Amino acid sequence: MPSGLSCPIPISEYPSVTMAHGAGGKMTHQLIEKIFMTAFDNPLLKTRHDGAVFQPEPGKLAFTTDSYVVRPLFFPGGDIGSLAVNGTVNDLAMCGARPLYLSAGFILEEGFSIESLWRIALSMRQAADQANVLIVTGDTKVVDKGKGDGIFINTAGIGQIEHAENIAPQSVRAGDAILLSGDIGRHGIALLAARAELNFETTLESDCADVSGLVLHLLRAGIPIHCLRDLTRGGLAAAVIEISESAGVAIEISESDIPIHQDVRGACEIIGLDPLHIANEGRFIAFIPQKYADTCLALLKEDPLGQDARIIGHVQHADSCLVTLISKIGGTRLLTLPSGELLPRIC
Amino acid sequence: MPSGLSCPIPISEYPSVTMAHGAGGKMTHQLIEKIFMTAFDNPLLKTRHDGAVFQPEPGKLAFTTDSYVVRPLFFPGGDIGSLAVNGTVNDLAMCGARPLYLSAGFILEEGFSIESLWRIALSMRQAADQANVLIVTGDTKVVDKGKGDGIFINTAGIGQIEHAENIAPQSVRAGDAILLSGDIGRHGIALLAARAELNFETTLESDCADVSGLVLHLLRAGIPIHCLRDLTRGGLAAAVIEISESAGVAIEISESDIPIHQDVRGACEIIGLDPLHIANEGRFIAFIPQKYADTCLALLKEDPLGQDARIIGHVQHADSCLVTLISKIGGTRLLTLPSGELLPRIC
Repeated sequence: MPSGLSCPIPISEYPSVTMAHGAGGKMTHQLIEKIFMTAFDNPLLKTRHDGAVFQPEPGKLAFTTDSYVVRPLFFPGGDIGSLAVNGTVNDLAMCGARPLYLSAGFILEEGFSIESLWRIALSMRQAADQANVLIVTGDTKVVDKGKGDGIFINTAGIGQIEHAENIAPQSVRAGDAILLSGDIGRHGIALLAARAELNFETTLESDCADVSGLVLHLLRAGIPIHCLRDLTRGGLAAAVIEISESAGVAIEISESDIPIHQDVRGACEIIGLDPLHIANEGRFIAFIPQKYADTCLALLKEDPLGQDARIIGHVQHADSCLVTLISKIGGTRLLTLPSGELLPRIC
Repeated sequence: MPSGLSCPIPISEYPSVTMAHGAGGKMTHQLIEKIFMTAFDNPLLKTRHDGAVFQPEPGKLAFTTDSYVVRPLFFPGGDIGSLAVNGTVNDLAMCGARPLYLSAGFILEEGFSIESLWRIALSMRQAADQANVLIVTGDTKVVDKGKGDGIFINTAGIGQIEHAENIAPQSVRAGDAILLSGDIGRHGIALLAARAELNFETTLESDCADVSGLVLHLLRAGIPIHCLRDLTRGGLAAAVIEISESAGVAIEISESDIPIHQDVRGACEIIGLDPLHIANEGRFIAFIPQKYADTCLALLKEDPLGQDARIIGHVQHADSCLVTLISKIGGTRLLTLPSGELLPRIC
């Protein structure tokens, strides 16, 4: 699917979404056929049935969902469409699954630009092609003006698990090394800058990307991964704390081993937020047995998405579920979940 | 899961959804643990991982999604929660699949009542129990006040196909009988009445229900179903027209064989809508070889949900994709997709 295709609906005639586009009649039919069937085109979708039917390979499957309400819709390094594909693909990857199929549910606000919808649908297709997934089933609803915010997208995903590891918080063990796939905070800060909420000049782009290839690279090399988690809402801090609680283990993280771009650091100082709380959309942590840590690090660094990977901490031999951060000057503090609203509408 | 459980979040302290509930920190954690983990409780969900991992039986799977934006949230015969479960379960059933798992994505508006959220979550659990599906993975987002409408829910579903039929529009054949599972128009008219948009007294309830058991009953009895379609947005007319176009066949429907409750008929006369265009949430049509029509009808009538089932038409031996309605007085007219907005926010 080449980018830059012009919108198949004549936008001079139909510039924006109307309530009729959601009513199940001719306009709904036109919107689905011209925009979504054209952009997502694949044999499973083409059956035009109430769902997609497929035959999986033998083995386990992963199933996940996310809704996307990000503002602005288009931001440096991505848009709500690429985010809606990559975010769900990454959740499948965090289960150690090879992403297969996505669903796409759209909630459109009356008055939303048809041309923007087409751009977003094309962006979804491009991200899906890159991640080697098909968007095979979908749904479109329209809400009255003032009852939505342009566009919300939900994607659900199915992935195939092709290994024998049980990748889950419950598999984390004392002694595990914790690897971080790259520098943190780009997505959140790029969005804040795009919203002009920051008096801060930056060329930072979101890290929004499909990390499933990177995860499959580790699995295919035989790394016995215990757990994976992408660093979305709540950032690195929330990911580590949630796994510590779900696994019932204590964790120690070294602040000086966490790569942070100077613009992220600068922006966080200005707005008074901790970079560890900022959302990412192409970064994850991996819990693996210590003896595989160096091999795993080398494998991560072979991929451009993992070139700044680091070993940032370990699971401790302790009974608590505390997460301790060793600061750059050697002090320690307990990491806690952020309270309050932080950065709204970041994903 | 008994109904009527009191809300696990103290609503005097936390009466409504705040932006912090969507920020990925403590409040998000509390909302998910207290409301969704409590209401949906099951082992797959309890792994608290980025997705649910399961081992399907050998065979094909169906995958589908729908978003739900219905107004009002609570209506006679259901609410947005039961609708979000039954609607997606029914889409799986229309693929001939036994529903297995659902995902649930919530988009909450700042200020939405926590108590209503709990009621809706409990209603989802009850509908899921009735349909014998588990809600195994989910997501919650919060949007600013005025940028949403209380609550939108997306569900995606996975179902197992346990037969050799290829249930799809492309399997429809000339001569097929078309069966309707019950009377039409209750859902749409019950919603209109609940919105007080009708000067019309009625005790009608929505037909919102899980029809998967009814479909599986037909399949297990060996009925070689060619195609199924539930009669949601756009009603019976849209369903028949869409299948005629996807299958490339002409269809003839007999108006006098379509059961319609007198209150639906009366309301439609007042508002000037055709009952064939009104949405249903517990009715479907089945395309089956003519020689199985009577057996299939008898099987449908064995179930309370199918007690008013009828044979309403046939697929014709013709080259066009026209849908012809034979009126009660013997005239014919072509059925067309409704244009315009009809009934907004009906599902």
